[in-house]
Amino acid sequence: MEFVSRLLDASRRNRSLLCVGLDPDPSKLPVKDVFEFNRAIIDATSDLVCCYKPNLAFYEALGIRGLQALKKTVAYIPRDIPVIGDAKRGDIGNTAAAYARALFDYYKFDAVTVNPYLGYDSVKPFLDYRNKGIFVLCRTSNSSASDFQDLVDNFGMKFYQSVALRAGDWNKGGNIGLVVGATYPDELKEIRKLCPDMPLLIPGIGAQGGDLEMSVRYGVNASGEMAIIVAARQVIYASKGPDFAQAARAAARELRDSINKFRGV
Amino acid sequence: MEFVSRLLDASRRNRSLLCVGLDPDPSKLPVKDVFEFNRAIIDATSDLVCCYKPNLAFYEALGIRGLQALKKTVAYIPRDIPVIGDAKRGDIGNTAAAYARALFDYYKFDAVTVNPYLGYDSVKPFLDYRNKGIFVLCRTSNSSASDFQDLVDNFGMKFYQSVALRAGDWNKGGNIGLVVGATYPDELKEIRKLCPDMPLLIPGIGAQGGDLEMSVRYGVNASGEMAIIVAARQVIYASKGPDFAQAARAAARELRDSINKFRGV
Repeated sequence: MEFVSRLLDASRRNRSLLCVGLDPDPSKLPVKDVFEFNRAIIDATSDLVCCYKPNLAFYEALGIRGLQALKKTVAYIPRDIPVIGDAKRGDIGNTAAAYARALFDYYKFDAVTVNPYLGYDSVKPFLDYRNKGIFVLCRTSNSSASDFQDLVDNFGMKFYQSVALRAGDWNKGGNIGLVVGATYPDELKEIRKLCPDMPLLIPGIGAQGGDLEMSVRYGVNASGEMAIIVAARQVIYASKGPDFAQAARAAARELRDSINKFRGV
Repeated sequence: MEFVSRLLDASRRNRSLLCVGLDPDPSKLPVKDVFEFNRAIIDATSDLVCCYKPNLAFYEALGIRGLQALKKTVAYIPRDIPVIGDAKRGDIGNTAAAYARALFDYYKFDAVTVNPYLGYDSVKPFLDYRNKGIFVLCRTSNSSASDFQDLVDNFGMKFYQSVALRAGDWNKGGNIGLVVGATYPDELKEIRKLCPDMPLLIPGIGAQGGDLEMSVRYGVNASGEMAIIVAARQVIYASKGPDFAQAARAAARELRDSINKFRGV
């Protein structure tokens, strides 16, 4: 089944636009084993989310054992909840194809994030997996996002706007989405207008300071869907004590419900 | 010791600007084990190169065992030959710091490639490793490079030129280099003028069709150094028979000598 259908199914079933980021940080983990931690978080939240999003950096930083935990984590997540591999890969064609094999065939992610800097032929090997979702970085949530993404071209268009439009052109298979930081609500509003029906992956609420209400109002499509609001630290480290899983559940439920209030469901 | 000094030492000792790309492709490997293959290639070429460059995609595509082979490969390369981890990572600050830990602390690369799309704060965690080299993607070797890298801003500057200039501003620690494809000699010439002393990592000769002579003439600095000419498939798959290591040595030697002829040493 196509990624967007699977995302919508999970989102409707759990009445949720919340995506929990599974980003293990050894200095904050209440238990020693990364997979055990993730399993407890997943058990506590899988009826409250529309998807999960592990960021590969946190697993790679732990070396081989981190990647073993990542693989086990993806396999453990219930099949009816999509998993986005936040990898932000970008390389030339034959190399991008190798990354796509790693992410889709080996780790079995349902979707990935990719970097647009190298252009179409660096994204195409991912797009060729027609049942997978490809989220192209558009406007990122960090403060240096403006360094290059705001450069204005000679038609008056900003670089991230060109990326949004180009991603629309590339989207023949209907499997592209965009990454837009919650920390830039004006840009989010504008990108939603440029791409009225694409799924938008929206990190940056919580620790990064993005506003939840504006992220939801500006991020959803006309049906109040297709926005994926990411929370990581705010949920998974809600408590560092033995009650961490219950605390994560409470934080996830509160976020899900706030999101639903803002989208009027 | 700083990366640039180590690179120059290796380059002068071996009279070489050649970097061998260690990109294992299971469909082309003459032996079954990736590490055994790399070891034979390294044994056959380590007196002919200025550095090695494994691209992480090819190891990730093989799963955990591929990454085990990568770690063993980096450890096996003689300490006086720098190793560039071609990872093209780019993420927000705390995540970029996790990638830097993975690449520098776990895999022990001497240098890495990074993607500039997210701007300064995504590169800074790498730059903070002052003895490591950071190669920022500037003009890539693929045909879609022009999709975004050629966008002209309202000051008449192309995006990749902005990246080159900005990388110069960021280079307080003297540990930045740029990636410029051999397939774009005019751009290479121009980037060398913008950044007269930075190390340039130049992939794209051989299978990708970049011209060797122009890559060398336009890529080197005023002393005929600081260009790193990458060859992967052309060297490591010079033969698929049992003589693969000897064939790789012959191909590497021929390339090294051609490069030296073009730079007049």
